[in-house]
Amino acid sequence: MLYCVEMQVNIPDSLEPSRVEAIKSAEKARAIELQKAGKWPHLWRVVGKYSNISILDVESNDELHQLLSSLPLFPYMTIQVTPLARHPSAI
Amino acid sequence: MLYCVEMQVNIPDSLEPSRVEAIKSAEKARAIELQKAGKWPHLWRVVGKYSNISILDVESNDELHQLLSSLPLFPYMTIQVTPLARHPSAI
Amino acid sequence: MLYCVEMQVNIPDSLEPSRVEAIKSAEKARAIELQKAGKWPHLWRVVGKYSNISILDVESNDELHQLLSSLPLFPYMTIQVTPLARHPSAI
Amino acid sequence: MLYCVEMQVNIPDSLEPSRVEAIKSAEKARAIELQKAGKWPHLWRVVGKYSNISILDVESNDELHQLLSSLPLFPYMTIQVTPLARHPSAI
Amino acid sequence: MLYCVEMQVNIPDSLEPSRVEAIKSAEKARAIELQKAGKWPHLWRVVGKYSNISILDVESNDELHQLLSSLPLFPYMTIQVTPLARHPSAI
Amino acid sequence: MLYCVEMQVNIPDSLEPSRVEAIKSAEKARAIELQKAGKWPHLWRVVGKYSNISILDVESNDELHQLLSSLPLFPYMTIQVTPLARHPSAI
Amino acid sequence: MLYCVEMQVNIPDSLEPSRVEAIKSAEKARAIELQKAGKWPHLWRVVGKYSNISILDVESNDELHQLLSSLPLFPYMTIQVTPLARHPSAI
Amino acid sequence: MLYCVEMQVNIPDSLEPSRVEAIKSAEKARAIELQKAGKWPHLWRVVGKYSNISILDVESNDELHQLLSSLPLFPYMTIQVTPLARHPSAI
Amino acid sequence: MLYCVEMQVNIPDSLEPSRVEAIKSAEKARAIELQKAGKWPHLWRVVGKYSNISILDVESNDELHQLLSSLPLFPYMTIQVTPLARHPSAI
Amino acid sequence: MLYCVEMQVNIPDSLEPSRVEAIKSAEKARAIELQKAGKWPHLWRVVGKYSNISILDVESNDELHQLLSSLPLFPYMTIQVTPLARHPSAI
Repeated sequence: MLYCVEMQVNIPDSLEPSRVEAIKSAEKARAIELQKAGKWPHLWRVVGKYSNISILDVESNDELHQLLSSLPLFPYMTIQVTPLARHPSAI
Repeated sequence: MLYCVEMQVNIPDSLEPSRVEAIKSAEKARAIELQKAGKWPHLWRVVGKYSNISILDVESNDELHQLLSSLPLFPYMTIQVTPLARHPSAI
Repeated sequence: MLYCVEMQVNIPDSLEPSRVEAIKSAEKARAIELQKAGKWPHLWRVVGKYSNISILDVESNDELHQLLSSLPLFPYMTIQVTPLARHPSAI
Repeated sequence: MLYCVEMQVNIPDSLEPSRVEAIKSAEKARAIELQKAGKWPHLWRVVGKYSNISILDVESNDELHQLLSSLPLFPYMTIQVTPLARHPSAI
Repeated sequence: MLYCVEMQVNIPDSLEPSRVEAIKSAEKARAIELQKAGKWPHLWRVVGKYSNISILDVESNDELHQLLSSLPLFPYMTIQVTPLARHPSAI
Repeated sequence: MLYCVEMQVNIPDSLEPSRVEAIKSAEKARAIELQKAGKWPHLWRVVGKYSNISILDVESNDELHQLLSSLPLFPYMTIQVTPLARHPSAI
Repeated sequence: MLYCVEMQVNIPDSLEPSRVEAIKSAEKARAIELQKAGKWPHLWRVVGKYSNISILDVESNDELHQLLSSLPLFPYMTIQVTPLARHPSAI
Repeated sequence: MLYCVEMQVNIPDSLEPSRVEAIKSAEKARAIELQKAGKWPHLWRVVGKYSNISILDVESNDELHQLLSSLPLFPYMTIQVTPLARHPSAI
Repeated sequence: MLYCVEMQVNIPDSLEPSRVEAIKSAEKARAIELQKAGKWPHLWRVVGKYSNISILDVESNDELHQLLSSLPLFPYMTIQVTPLARHPSAI
Repeated sequence: MLYCVEMQVNIPDSLEPSRVEAIKSAEKARAIELQKAGKWPHLWRVVGKYSNISILDVESNDELHQLLSSLPLFPYMTIQVTPLARHPSAI
């Protein structure tokens, strides 16, 4: 089941640089892991922003929330979720 | 080169039903043609709306505008275009 | 799987009154049918508006779109879909 | 009397982690208490957000404000209240 | 129980002038009736707009929706409802 | 001359608690004083928010600004002012 | 007493051209009359729009609404009213 | 003196096709004329929309409004004007 | 050449009170100077806000930006600029 | 391939003045370098704002994101990207 998810990152200035780096590394590792598991089939950068547009493939709304809230950057992201359905003209 | 394109369809009441059906058929044929040509790799329905979220794969901004403005439903769509770049964590 | 769905109805003036009544009757029948089937567990009127806030219970995004787009008022509604997950403090 | 209430939590970075944990524990306890008392019949997590959509069941606007402003997270929440009425098609 | 209600009137051009006058007369009669009954304690014109800001005093959300949807201009109004509570500094 | 005024309070975290309490006490005293003087005939709490909707009764725009900017909470409020006129259906 | 008033004109296509011209002529005559009377001290065109930004000088909110609602174009305008006060740095 | 001008075209369905074609031809001729005169140095299509982003080079605000309001499509365009100044880092 | 300029002031809490007072004094002196020079013919306070609506009279967009960016409060203001033209009904 | 890019700068108060100056100098040097390379053909200041409207000329979406994210002010800018195509009336 697919969802279009836009994640906008806003890291506060008050966070220490070393902490920021640790979070970003953990985020990258988790993103790669979820891609390999087939849960995160598409991940694109939005040009000019510290944001991504992603397609997530999960079993349920609950799984999607668990996946998103487990991301190391979750506390610093504004996330917009759009549920997707099969389009009648899609081949 | 990828773009995320959201197309929201608003067909006016004044359009005759037979004309609407003809446009929709032509739109479907064109959408299938462009998917087969690899120009429109993803096409999803937005749940609860007469809208789609699509990924288009074209050579240039000019090609994207030509493609979108050639769609039979183009005069009846509100289109939002987001240019995409490779994400550093994408595998 | 639950979704919060807000449906705002906008019937154009150009629609004939008898046609409007037929659509509303069909909508009511379908709404009752879906409630009885357990697919539409909650349906509330928004005070002061020709809108409802509903909770839908379906198996997938695809089923939700099929359900919503099968409503007789679907062509005249603006629909907002919010996927819901279990809340950790819910009993 | 029912209200749809959307609560979005924004805890400032300046709050000490131990204070945050204490507030969250108190919030959870209060939410469970109000659910058991029948005042808060539905509590759902919004997927991808630190927000909930809730249905509150109270005697009056005054009781609703007292209930909401008594929540430990109240100072850190943006709350949207929508009064609900019985829908003519609800069974 | 008080609510602040903003009603913005948008009468479509397609409505016949005599029909418009009939609706406006009926609306005025109903507004006066509800004021006399103590249900509509305040009714003000918003300067520069075909809108009013009103205070309604009813027993419940259901009564408020019945009252508002019974107004002759209801099909031509966009209505915003804000539930009010007693203010701790009010005398 | 009446105005509908919506005041939304946003006290920054950086303000010391004792200072906050002093400002709130002074605000309450001033609000009571202005109500007694007939300048602030209505003051309601917006349910679920640290906001009020008020009706102010003053001689002029200048007097309204002086009144509002003299409030102890003024530096911490976002204020929306709507000028009101007599409604032709008001009794 | 001054107000900044922005008036945006939207004349519907369905209005007959001769009727439109008659309304515009009447509007111009009324605008000149009110300027000569000192009620409308400033009237500017917003570049690129069928809108004006005006300063009105009236005795009260009621007079302002009467003035604005007496304009021949009033039914076809969206009007935004901002009450103005003396600025402490104005000479 | 430069301005960034975004023009969004919305031609109503009620306009006859032959009239639409005549207006578009006149618009194109006028746009070419103004470009040749150096008044309209840049004219770009916004991808996916019936809109353009343009740079206009005129002597004054008055000249800009005269230029824009003289365009055959002016009655059918929503126009946003942004005044531009020299940037300190421009070469 | 006239422009309508709305300036909204947002001074951060972190700025020292003495620094704030110095900036405000300098702003007032500069505003008076520009009014005397005929560059700033109108300056009004927006009722209920720490904002002003002003009319500026300058030779060019460049002069306007230089004037605005030279204001001591410029780093703490959100500024909206609307170019004005002569209105055909202005006397 | 052209893009219209609006960059709005928001430097946080917490950044040290010397650091701010260093970033601004580096930004200016980079902007000049990119203009000389033909990548940034137009750079204008938006009147009244710490913003610019720019035209960028690059080979791809990826190159545009690399260019923008390499700007020293990138972490402090809100950037809006609009892809441009050739306009049929452009000469």
